[in-house]
Amino acid sequence: MPTAIESLRERLFDVNALQTAATVMDWDQQTYMPKGASEARAHHMSTLTRMAHEQFTADDTRKWAEDAVAETEDDVAWLRLVRRKLNLATKLPSQLVAEKTHAGAIGHDLWVEARKANDFARFAPQLERLFDICRQEAELYGYQDDIYDALLDTYEEGATAAEVRAMFAAIKQPQIDLIERIKACGPVDDSWLYGNWAQDSQRQITEYYLRAVGYDFERGRQDTAAHPFCTSFSVTDVRVTTRYTNYLPGSIMSTLHEAGHAMYEQGSPVAWDRTLLAGGASLGVHESQSRLWENIVGRSMAFWAWGFGRIVQAFPALAERSATEFQRAINKVEPSLIRVEADELTYNLHIMIRFELESEILKGQLKVADLPAAWNAKYQAYLGITPDSDANGCLQDVHWSGGSVGYFPTYTMGNLLSYQIWNRMRKDVGDTDMRITRGEFAPILQWLREHMYQYGSKFAPKDLVVKVTGKPMDPTEYLDGLQAKYTALYHL
Amino acid sequence: MPTAIESLRERLFDVNALQTAATVMDWDQQTYMPKGASEARAHHMSTLTRMAHEQFTADDTRKWAEDAVAETEDDVAWLRLVRRKLNLATKLPSQLVAEKTHAGAIGHDLWVEARKANDFARFAPQLERLFDICRQEAELYGYQDDIYDALLDTYEEGATAAEVRAMFAAIKQPQIDLIERIKACGPVDDSWLYGNWAQDSQRQITEYYLRAVGYDFERGRQDTAAHPFCTSFSVTDVRVTTRYTNYLPGSIMSTLHEAGHAMYEQGSPVAWDRTLLAGGASLGVHESQSRLWENIVGRSMAFWAWGFGRIVQAFPALAERSATEFQRAINKVEPSLIRVEADELTYNLHIMIRFELESEILKGQLKVADLPAAWNAKYQAYLGITPDSDANGCLQDVHWSGGSVGYFPTYTMGNLLSYQIWNRMRKDVGDTDMRITRGEFAPILQWLREHMYQYGSKFAPKDLVVKVTGKPMDPTEYLDGLQAKYTALYHL
Repeated sequence: MPTAIESLRERLFDVNALQTAATVMDWDQQTYMPKGASEARAHHMSTLTRMAHEQFTADDTRKWAEDAVAETEDDVAWLRLVRRKLNLATKLPSQLVAEKTHAGAIGHDLWVEARKANDFARFAPQLERLFDICRQEAELYGYQDDIYDALLDTYEEGATAAEVRAMFAAIKQPQIDLIERIKACGPVDDSWLYGNWAQDSQRQITEYYLRAVGYDFERGRQDTAAHPFCTSFSVTDVRVTTRYTNYLPGSIMSTLHEAGHAMYEQGSPVAWDRTLLAGGASLGVHESQSRLWENIVGRSMAFWAWGFGRIVQAFPALAERSATEFQRAINKVEPSLIRVEADELTYNLHIMIRFELESEILKGQLKVADLPAAWNAKYQAYLGITPDSDANGCLQDVHWSGGSVGYFPTYTMGNLLSYQIWNRMRKDVGDTDMRITRGEFAPILQWLREHMYQYGSKFAPKDLVVKVTGKPMDPTEYLDGLQAKYTALYHL
Repeated sequence: MPTAIESLRERLFDVNALQTAATVMDWDQQTYMPKGASEARAHHMSTLTRMAHEQFTADDTRKWAEDAVAETEDDVAWLRLVRRKLNLATKLPSQLVAEKTHAGAIGHDLWVEARKANDFARFAPQLERLFDICRQEAELYGYQDDIYDALLDTYEEGATAAEVRAMFAAIKQPQIDLIERIKACGPVDDSWLYGNWAQDSQRQITEYYLRAVGYDFERGRQDTAAHPFCTSFSVTDVRVTTRYTNYLPGSIMSTLHEAGHAMYEQGSPVAWDRTLLAGGASLGVHESQSRLWENIVGRSMAFWAWGFGRIVQAFPALAERSATEFQRAINKVEPSLIRVEADELTYNLHIMIRFELESEILKGQLKVADLPAAWNAKYQAYLGITPDSDANGCLQDVHWSGGSVGYFPTYTMGNLLSYQIWNRMRKDVGDTDMRITRGEFAPILQWLREHMYQYGSKFAPKDLVVKVTGKPMDPTEYLDGLQAKYTALYHL
């Protein structure tokens, strides 16, 4: 007769198989699936998601989760995660879960079409439906002060809209001031980064950098997708995607970004595979690693002092340029329309806009039909520019098309945490600039693995941040880091 | 309150989602999965397969299947399929199913090792065990005259060993005679088909032919795999794979072969998607379509009169050769050791040998230990050659290592049926040679869709053959077809 914890473990392996099946189907949909297959795929994914939800929230699962007795410290952490998830999941009827999956699959396809045709109206009714579903979800989860908290907590345990507002309040003015001072230095010419860059060479370069920083191709692969992402099927199969555009650093930076996510996932103990202990602590903590590898490593002078030769090898015309010029150009600060192409500094303003808008729609303060106008107005107000089209405006991001509302603030949290974790790491590893200049990424990755990645989801995000850095999330190091970086770059 | 047939339908959609998930994972494993992921993938796939089996054979599923009342003609056909599958699935105790899965997994690993080491003795005890299990299976399924019938029926509904023996008796001597007469003409030089052919050009060519014959890329795609296969995730997502080797026609012919399977699957009504009605009637009938497009279309003079220019465009060095030479070379007849590399004519002798041997072992007339000697004797008797090793002899095929006994004859059935169906089609479509010479494949595909593909699995294979061709499977047309083809090729 198996014990409650044994039965629970077996049940959750089944749930994991169902969820992973849906995850594989999602990866396939975004990379290789033929167009005509959308409807059947939507049926399959919603069925699998529904089954996973049914199995996870079944009476016996809940009973086992209540009765389970932890035998190890890992069991304690695992049961905490199981119970938190179970608590969230049992609040939603499986009908609503299936409805969201189905609406999200259709939403994704409509979003792709609408963005292509620059036709927001084609997407709007489905977006409305998705926000409706999110509103129902939030009410079912429950909240104290702000309906937004209910959704935000599902992505970032324990975070609140009030904290997010405080975070943006702390960084908004210093960032706008810094952007102003940089603007006064005159424009940086990065026009030479645009061109008809051979896709195959971009693929080779990005794979080279992936390998160099420590992404494990024995347990992952890179493909292309409309919107770059990282996905895990197991600790031993963590995949990334990128896209090849006419802006050369686009693929490189998005690859390093996804590598950060992926190396965090690949760093979980294999013994935890297929359990909730594997993977990252939260979206914000996860984002801290993608930002760390993309911005702190990948946009540093040290990185390009080491890595510029590879670019020249692939695109010999760039031999006319120097690593210094390249690094300066990829750090160009300029208000722009597209979040994923935004520089490190203006990026948070893009996030702030999305946070404000999704919060307003959720609360019924803004109608979906009015989103394009509201979006454009905020871009004008915070960034001083107005989108030339909805495709480059409110249709640019994938998130809402799948019903992910409350997700965006975790990007800015990640930015803050990236500097905080980086600074702590440097105290142990020493002169990271020198190491990076030599292409020695292993000590950095090793430190992160030892102090953070190996813990997977074991600790709640706020606890993990304290464990790794010695204090809670704090905007100071982020603001200081940006100040130092851009003072050097622009001789402010 | 849903009716029994409604509940049954919903349940089988769930089973379909689970099976499709395992199918997608299998496709991924054979095309893109990183090496390190095997263990987790095996866990996920076996969990999904187990769940599908549990859901399919659950008490309520069986009860609904008993009580279900058909409302349409399609329901009648669907219920027939469901009950047949359920009957087969429930006749075996889960103990035996698990034993076979386990023995098959071990058998597969031992077979890989034994083939590599050319050491039949290492595999023999496990092969013995697998045949024991198959014997038990057959007894549980039940049969009238011949134990072989019970297993054959699981692959080819209603087929019997007596029919298979009659089929081979009819074609054996005429084929051996034809091969002898061809041998007397002296060797055909096809050495120029071997070379270092650029993979990207092979990809472009094969995709061109796929598109030309009517494979729908909106509802499918082609990738590469170690062993070419066709797989369906839905009627709207039927994928093929090929492989690029140093034998140029290898990828082209395997692509046309898989295209035949795929176009058959793509031809099922979308309304039947995710039900047992979609897909092909049986393995033999399926194989008739892969052979039709590979051999009758793809190895015809008409096809290369039309399609040779594309080869020259991709590989200009081949401009020295003519379409006639090319067609002659890809139809080279020569007794050889390896089934999957055999030409159209000698292929059936490979199958006959396997059928005779597996039948004898099953009945205890041949000991597993004596298989290598018996195998080699038959290769000498029928093909005039003796394997140089067991690796190139009785260890070459994967089928028995997983316990697939009774499968092989469906390949030859497919060969016979391909000509029978082709001839019937020609009566309506008219001068197919002329059409193919012009690259007009649409009338052929259209006829097949209308008279065959649109029926999916609706009819039992024997009924379908009569419906499509007006008579049961008959070797005459096949023999006449080969006679005509090779008389022309070799000026016999």
